[in-house]
Amino acid sequence: MKISMIGTGSFGTSLAMVLDENGHDVLMYGRNDDTVHEINQEHSNKNYLKDIKLNETIKATNDLEVAVAHGEMLVLAVPVKAMRTMARTINVILTEQNKKVLICHVAKGLELGTHKRVSEVLQEELSENNYTDIAVLSGPSHAEEVSLMLPTTVSTASVNESGRKIVQDAFINKHFRVYENKDLIGVEVGGALKNIIAIAIGILDGLGFGDNTKSAVITRGLHEIARLGTKMGADPLTFMGLTGVGDLIVTAMSEHSRNFRCGKMLASGQSLDDIIENMGMVVEGVNTTKAAYELSQQFDIDMPITNVLYLYLFEELSEEEAFYSLMMRDKTSETDGLIALMKNRIDSE
Amino acid sequence: MKISMIGTGSFGTSLAMVLDENGHDVLMYGRNDDTVHEINQEHSNKNYLKDIKLNETIKATNDLEVAVAHGEMLVLAVPVKAMRTMARTINVILTEQNKKVLICHVAKGLELGTHKRVSEVLQEELSENNYTDIAVLSGPSHAEEVSLMLPTTVSTASVNESGRKIVQDAFINKHFRVYENKDLIGVEVGGALKNIIAIAIGILDGLGFGDNTKSAVITRGLHEIARLGTKMGADPLTFMGLTGVGDLIVTAMSEHSRNFRCGKMLASGQSLDDIIENMGMVVEGVNTTKAAYELSQQFDIDMPITNVLYLYLFEELSEEEAFYSLMMRDKTSETDGLIALMKNRIDSE
Repeated sequence: MKISMIGTGSFGTSLAMVLDENGHDVLMYGRNDDTVHEINQEHSNKNYLKDIKLNETIKATNDLEVAVAHGEMLVLAVPVKAMRTMARTINVILTEQNKKVLICHVAKGLELGTHKRVSEVLQEELSENNYTDIAVLSGPSHAEEVSLMLPTTVSTASVNESGRKIVQDAFINKHFRVYENKDLIGVEVGGALKNIIAIAIGILDGLGFGDNTKSAVITRGLHEIARLGTKMGADPLTFMGLTGVGDLIVTAMSEHSRNFRCGKMLASGQSLDDIIENMGMVVEGVNTTKAAYELSQQFDIDMPITNVLYLYLFEELSEEEAFYSLMMRDKTSETDGLIALMKNRIDSE
Repeated sequence: MKISMIGTGSFGTSLAMVLDENGHDVLMYGRNDDTVHEINQEHSNKNYLKDIKLNETIKATNDLEVAVAHGEMLVLAVPVKAMRTMARTINVILTEQNKKVLICHVAKGLELGTHKRVSEVLQEELSENNYTDIAVLSGPSHAEEVSLMLPTTVSTASVNESGRKIVQDAFINKHFRVYENKDLIGVEVGGALKNIIAIAIGILDGLGFGDNTKSAVITRGLHEIARLGTKMGADPLTFMGLTGVGDLIVTAMSEHSRNFRCGKMLASGQSLDDIIENMGMVVEGVNTTKAAYELSQQFDIDMPITNVLYLYLFEELSEEEAFYSLMMRDKTSETDGLIALMKNRIDSE
């Protein structure tokens, strides 16, 4: 299958390696001429995946028209904030080329301002004639480990069953296991919201809290993700799977995670602006915290971790005040909220 | 309140510190004369909690009759395999003393052979006249961190509401948060079965697998714990709380955890017997793996991680074969099993 990888970041590159390994004809698109040249000539991408050797069969271009013309499937591996413009540009090219493709995105976040999921943004920007389906691929999958072929599991979801079956078949192999999931909303929302909790856990880690505290906040974080996600139309059970608890664990407990590292640096006193500039990569959880905070206000949903992080990031609430307050809730029963979620879920079957 | 802590291990000692801090009159019981002497004279317990200074108000005795006579509540912090004999001995003393106490245990495992939960063992061995209630206190709570007063959350469950309310009130303070839970079975089973997954994750870590793999196995581990636990009478929602996913995360991702460390040492080629001898503490997950394996056969429940670990620990299945096989399941949908669990749960409301 001819596949174009739109984006030459760490995750896009590691996925290009998986697709190439599976025998697909992979062309990567990147804006940065140096990176494109490095992929084509040196077969490496050291800014993102330091020690990796790419197969020579993986090519790159800086010409989006060439990339779009190449692919039967386009995999969009660009930051959430770049997604709308990218989709609009691709749509013009697809129309010009009179072409219909399968779209699969791998971004984890909500659009600032609109609070929309990435597939909603794509659906708004792409003409119906230009795509067969819009899918997402998501799960606990640090790019570094994917590129080292360490066993990884992800989920794919889409509106139509046919689309996600093609995505599953394209990516699945011995060490990269792909499960299909009907719940597009849940898969996208789980991937997006876990970044909020990961920043919070990074802050707690940086402030010297231990595993007991982090574990408590992750557990509650899972519940508040499920509360908002269900309100947004997700199946609460999805949050118990790979794109929920699985991705939350891998993001919140690992130094590989940018969102975790961002939180840790915040705790050490660095400013958010400095961190984002020095990281050289997007920290999706920051904008998603703002989007989720606004949604929680709009829907009147109890999201204590998101609220505390929002106040800390955007309203200068002090650390001590913020993070101790998370632990100091009244004594109560811990799963009340979940019962209601699951009951609605089952009643709708 | 007069409280006796039966056991002078790391968790018992850290909980004695919490109770003492809350103003209770705490007497610890231990068999080891040196430890009892150290607690009374040096106000330390260096074998278990290296750097901790105990308040002088915490006393210890090696006379079980004295300890039982002291307490209105007895907290049993001994290994699962010692629980039945301890309960039988305590019962004789309680009868002699014509005394009725509240029993709270903090052990995490299933009894070998009988497959029983600890509260079932206690109920069998204690005369009804000798106790007001049997409760459990469990959750993501490394003893080292509890003793350092790092914020920690746990759950308490019991048959009667009155018992767990007293346990909650006795233990709760600013940094040790106690939630009550009606589901005694779920709280006990979650605490027991997560140790199985922790050993498996330790092995994966020792073999060089990454966070992506560990996260996938933890997620599936949670589902298989829920499958067996529900069959044993637990509420599946309990596995989404502190004593389920919370305790699983803290045990499976932390070097503090004996079960995790045991797995890691197994992967390095050490024998199980050597590890257990050198550890000097009980690795509850080993016996619990055997008990859970036998239960999964008896109930015909799909528990791939437990089964692989059982074969590896007790039947000499090779590592490669064992742990790669966990990742190689057919492509499928990931939450099918959960839907059935939750449906039964809600139908029974």
